[in-house]
Amino acid sequence: MIVRHTPRRWEIFLILNGSVVPRILPNIIGAALWAAAVLMLDRHVVAVPQIPIGAMGVFGLSLSLFLGFRNNAAYDRWWEARKIWGRMVSDVRSLAQELHIFAGQGPDETYILNRILAFHHLHRAQLRGDDVADTVRHWVGPEDADLLMQTENSPNAALRDIAARLREMAEDGRIDGFGQRALAERLAAFPAAQAGNERLLTTPLPFVYSLLVWRTTYLYCLLLPFALLGSAGWFEPLVAAVAAYVFFGLAEVTHELEHPFRKQANSVPLSAMCRVMEISVCNALGRPVPPKLEPVNYVLD
Amino acid sequence: MIVRHTPRRWEIFLILNGSVVPRILPNIIGAALWAAAVLMLDRHVVAVPQIPIGAMGVFGLSLSLFLGFRNNAAYDRWWEARKIWGRMVSDVRSLAQELHIFAGQGPDETYILNRILAFHHLHRAQLRGDDVADTVRHWVGPEDADLLMQTENSPNAALRDIAARLREMAEDGRIDGFGQRALAERLAAFPAAQAGNERLLTTPLPFVYSLLVWRTTYLYCLLLPFALLGSAGWFEPLVAAVAAYVFFGLAEVTHELEHPFRKQANSVPLSAMCRVMEISVCNALGRPVPPKLEPVNYVLD
Amino acid sequence: MIVRHTPRRWEIFLILNGSVVPRILPNIIGAALWAAAVLMLDRHVVAVPQIPIGAMGVFGLSLSLFLGFRNNAAYDRWWEARKIWGRMVSDVRSLAQELHIFAGQGPDETYILNRILAFHHLHRAQLRGDDVADTVRHWVGPEDADLLMQTENSPNAALRDIAARLREMAEDGRIDGFGQRALAERLAAFPAAQAGNERLLTTPLPFVYSLLVWRTTYLYCLLLPFALLGSAGWFEPLVAAVAAYVFFGLAEVTHELEHPFRKQANSVPLSAMCRVMEISVCNALGRPVPPKLEPVNYVLD
Amino acid sequence: MIVRHTPRRWEIFLILNGSVVPRILPNIIGAALWAAAVLMLDRHVVAVPQIPIGAMGVFGLSLSLFLGFRNNAAYDRWWEARKIWGRMVSDVRSLAQELHIFAGQGPDETYILNRILAFHHLHRAQLRGDDVADTVRHWVGPEDADLLMQTENSPNAALRDIAARLREMAEDGRIDGFGQRALAERLAAFPAAQAGNERLLTTPLPFVYSLLVWRTTYLYCLLLPFALLGSAGWFEPLVAAVAAYVFFGLAEVTHELEHPFRKQANSVPLSAMCRVMEISVCNALGRPVPPKLEPVNYVLD
Amino acid sequence: MIVRHTPRRWEIFLILNGSVVPRILPNIIGAALWAAAVLMLDRHVVAVPQIPIGAMGVFGLSLSLFLGFRNNAAYDRWWEARKIWGRMVSDVRSLAQELHIFAGQGPDETYILNRILAFHHLHRAQLRGDDVADTVRHWVGPEDADLLMQTENSPNAALRDIAARLREMAEDGRIDGFGQRALAERLAAFPAAQAGNERLLTTPLPFVYSLLVWRTTYLYCLLLPFALLGSAGWFEPLVAAVAAYVFFGLAEVTHELEHPFRKQANSVPLSAMCRVMEISVCNALGRPVPPKLEPVNYVLD
Repeated sequence: MIVRHTPRRWEIFLILNGSVVPRILPNIIGAALWAAAVLMLDRHVVAVPQIPIGAMGVFGLSLSLFLGFRNNAAYDRWWEARKIWGRMVSDVRSLAQELHIFAGQGPDETYILNRILAFHHLHRAQLRGDDVADTVRHWVGPEDADLLMQTENSPNAALRDIAARLREMAEDGRIDGFGQRALAERLAAFPAAQAGNERLLTTPLPFVYSLLVWRTTYLYCLLLPFALLGSAGWFEPLVAAVAAYVFFGLAEVTHELEHPFRKQANSVPLSAMCRVMEISVCNALGRPVPPKLEPVNYVLD
Repeated sequence: MIVRHTPRRWEIFLILNGSVVPRILPNIIGAALWAAAVLMLDRHVVAVPQIPIGAMGVFGLSLSLFLGFRNNAAYDRWWEARKIWGRMVSDVRSLAQELHIFAGQGPDETYILNRILAFHHLHRAQLRGDDVADTVRHWVGPEDADLLMQTENSPNAALRDIAARLREMAEDGRIDGFGQRALAERLAAFPAAQAGNERLLTTPLPFVYSLLVWRTTYLYCLLLPFALLGSAGWFEPLVAAVAAYVFFGLAEVTHELEHPFRKQANSVPLSAMCRVMEISVCNALGRPVPPKLEPVNYVLD
Repeated sequence: MIVRHTPRRWEIFLILNGSVVPRILPNIIGAALWAAAVLMLDRHVVAVPQIPIGAMGVFGLSLSLFLGFRNNAAYDRWWEARKIWGRMVSDVRSLAQELHIFAGQGPDETYILNRILAFHHLHRAQLRGDDVADTVRHWVGPEDADLLMQTENSPNAALRDIAARLREMAEDGRIDGFGQRALAERLAAFPAAQAGNERLLTTPLPFVYSLLVWRTTYLYCLLLPFALLGSAGWFEPLVAAVAAYVFFGLAEVTHELEHPFRKQANSVPLSAMCRVMEISVCNALGRPVPPKLEPVNYVLD
Repeated sequence: MIVRHTPRRWEIFLILNGSVVPRILPNIIGAALWAAAVLMLDRHVVAVPQIPIGAMGVFGLSLSLFLGFRNNAAYDRWWEARKIWGRMVSDVRSLAQELHIFAGQGPDETYILNRILAFHHLHRAQLRGDDVADTVRHWVGPEDADLLMQTENSPNAALRDIAARLREMAEDGRIDGFGQRALAERLAAFPAAQAGNERLLTTPLPFVYSLLVWRTTYLYCLLLPFALLGSAGWFEPLVAAVAAYVFFGLAEVTHELEHPFRKQANSVPLSAMCRVMEISVCNALGRPVPPKLEPVNYVLD
Repeated sequence: MIVRHTPRRWEIFLILNGSVVPRILPNIIGAALWAAAVLMLDRHVVAVPQIPIGAMGVFGLSLSLFLGFRNNAAYDRWWEARKIWGRMVSDVRSLAQELHIFAGQGPDETYILNRILAFHHLHRAQLRGDDVADTVRHWVGPEDADLLMQTENSPNAALRDIAARLREMAEDGRIDGFGQRALAERLAAFPAAQAGNERLLTTPLPFVYSLLVWRTTYLYCLLLPFALLGSAGWFEPLVAAVAAYVFFGLAEVTHELEHPFRKQANSVPLSAMCRVMEISVCNALGRPVPPKLEPVNYVLD
């Protein structure tokens, strides 16, 4: 995620970090060249038929609605991803609270809170392929970490360990029925969050939209110069380039936000959020607290 | 569901799989021919009155708003279907956790988790007519499977079996009141999800919208050539074809997403999600885990 | 609710069932006649001042936004009504499950499930005035049915009977505290759903919107011919008729969906949904199952 | 709230009740006069420069989007207010059910249900300044009512009385832990609803929007005549008046719905909803039932 | 938050407090000067090529959609912030109710309610850097306050104190399991709200949007004068200034609402809401009630 103050007026056109301009530069230049070519053809070779600007207006409107819809959907996905991770932070804190209330302090609390950290790191690895082996070993010990990481669905294995521990605590009378129920309910929040993240990871926007949007954007930029022939004159390549910037830029932004867990400048900062959980757990267990992650070159990982 | 990387620039116009072009090709060609015919008539036979392009603009705007509304509603249906199934995955995992916490491991756990898999396969059959007889027999045994599949609403029969088992467990003291309540609450999530899916299955968008949208799209494409007469010249069939592509394309996409459970390229992959549940159950029961389903020709079933 | 397959291309302009055309035909014809009259006046009597088509564009845009907003709001109401009823189906099924888990089979189960069916039928009568006397008598017996139907708010009286029975069951030890709490919680879902439906029934969209939308639509259709004078020629009545179809059509659709419980072609099929609940209850009680309701002339009641 | 059947065609332009026309009439007339003055100036005094109608189109579009956004937000506020009050009705009914299930009939039930009515009347007074002293005295007796009404936040005082009673019932064994918990949970619904209503009451839409919208609307109506000069001729004042009607009308409607609790024609009918609760409580206590409130001159209070 | 009555007609253009005009004045003046320069150049130096106004229409539409999207997203953030704080108020009141019901009055109640006030003040400090040391000392005593404020995440430390107290109350039998569970559940609402606020604080809208919106707005204002050359004449600087006012004004409003916790005129009034909680707590504890905070110069802090 990019963390940075609002740029000043003169900075707005200079910032490249987090901007999509580098990636769509070929399209912008291509649109300008194509517009110049059409203009040259019309002026110097043969009169080209013109498309009424009003017809392009309807076309542009449809394109704007497509892009607007896709943008809303992509932003909702990104924001939902952030909401789920925020909710996970609060569930970790509530789990710590409820362990304190129902089980008191002791090895059970330590065991469960360490495992829940392992769950989140392993889930992070599942979402974007981070290497978390060392981190997991740090929290649950090397043998347990290796056992966890050998299983098929390792985040779930961590939750199964917690469930087994809760069973054991109940059988030994270290928690009563109320505590068992409260902690089981809290524990169910984690697979729910995990399933939400898996949904965002494995189900992108329907592919058919991508096709429709990209095709329509290309068609629009191909036809636009024929509508500008009449009056724009030597402004034509500039107008075509601006249109390409606006439409391809939005398509590209949308494409990035659609995948909130990829390693990209605008993604959800999973490492930083896992660190927030670690801080909360250390606070709860009375341990020394690791520092917050800070953005590097304006990007928080 | 179509699973595929973002196409490169030159691929965008070549991909047919998942595209709606093949289905709306008659409309696109028809629109182009109609535009050519109007143009010929105007040039060579008799002067045709022209419609002001501004009037078509208002018309095109209304059409865009119709299509935009219908598109939003259809996408919401598709996404809700995916959300409900994702939630079902997490409820299966939570059920396994809570069985472990409140009842421990043993035949009760096996019985209930097998039945819940049967519920999901039977529900999948209810939603899109899959043949699930062998799969259900595999999980609950041949006699029980046949009993289940003979009843009217077989997914619910599987849930009734689980309810009966929970009653028996409580009466024999194998779970206490807390466990009984926790498991009963979890079990109530499945009919709720089932009712949500039945709603999406049996209640499409109001039929009156389909009529209004299709009729307006046809009227628009019929009238458009009269508005283009003035200036578009021999571009006219091309512009008409592009307009037909944009509007019929969106109408067709919408129509497909409106029915998220049909066997279509962009539907929710029910078989793959049932397999995810099977993997979770096998993990919980310590059994060998079946492989994930993989997309075939980019389509995940 | 209209249940019908997607019409083929040639059917689209022929279907009248579920269409709003018959109801807005006077408006469409009126708009065409008015346009023809303005045209005649301008051509043969006196030159009429013209409104710039661009000004009509802004007007048309505002009208589209009004209609679009009202359409969204009306569709949300319709869909919320369907959601609440779908949720009620699942709550009936969950109630049956929980009765089985906490109280086992016997006269209590029969009593409560019959009453809950009576609640839904009485609520249906409250919502759209159906005659449900015979149906209620069938499920709770003639005397009890007459007692229920004499009270002010008969659906609530049915719920009060269930509450009294739960109290009795708890006092006689036929359910424990956990069951009492689980069933009380489930029972609270029904007044919540009832209140939701009452809200949709008694609180239509604010009246001021209806006035604004209808007035603006009429003004638009009155002024449109003056904007078309310039170029549309003898197409003018056709364009006016199409505009009237689009705008009055959407206003009428919206008006219908705004009242999801009226006896209309596109309403929520309350009788069919009550039958689904009856099937679920008969399944739970092991009784013979009545058939599903089928659409009559494409309309499901 | 205005309760009235859909007006017939000829009634649409005659209804004043609930219409915003009376309040924006000065603006409509002003806009027409201003347009006439500009026209006279241009024709008879000095040629006035013209604004291209296309530029006004972009302006009109932005204005429509502003108004559309504000309208959505205001409608959501109004509908949320209605939802909260509908939910309160159902919570009163559920409270009565749960009192019956867990505490049985008797003075506790009467005490609590009377207090909850007092809470709603006092909350209504808090929201729109109604004089509810007599009503509250009727339900809780004169002394208790006066005690309640002397406190700072009287609705909350009524809830505190209920909490104290529940504590007393639990200490005397008149309810067990399950009932205590169920009723405490239900009781928490009322401060939540109260906080929701307080939010809608004290936090209007950000003031900056009001400024932006009103200023833009005035600017638009001031500039519009210069764009119409070219062609509209003596239609110009009419077109200006219609534009003023549409834009000021929507701004005014929005302003009214933004405050759902004021004493206005389109507000939420708090008195009628409190009466619905009284009917439910009387039903639960077996008392004679007061009549529903009916609309007076189409307005339900 | 700005608290003020609807301004009268003549006040609308005079109010500066809460308006964004002062901040965007350079942009408005710049746009007007630029338009005047282009006009002078075209008239007196060299004929400048013109951009068709229709092309600017499509551009303006895209810009409106960008700004509209960003505005919706920013308003949703602001409104969510207000909702979370409203919910916190109701959770404080419910906590007081439930303490009364399950634990009765006494030192436990006082301790927990004082800590929860400390939590909210500390959280307010975390959100916008207020100095709350004295206030916290007032509610929990100087030593405890200093202990709290030394920890890393001081709001959470306050919640941990409450959890420890609940544990102690349960171990000493001052609450039973039901009360323990009810209070633990309520206590979990506060970290959830805190996580929601932290999300709004630390995750602004994706930076890439800001770039895209600001760049597009600047480009639009740079190109607009070339489109107005044809007809607007000496109105041109005025039209350019109005366009700059509308587009930069919306961008600036959006930027302000995007950060609902900053010390700005339109922000959520955290101090006032903390005072509302203090009043509720004093009511519950029977202490003298501090006065509500009042707006200063129309601004509520």
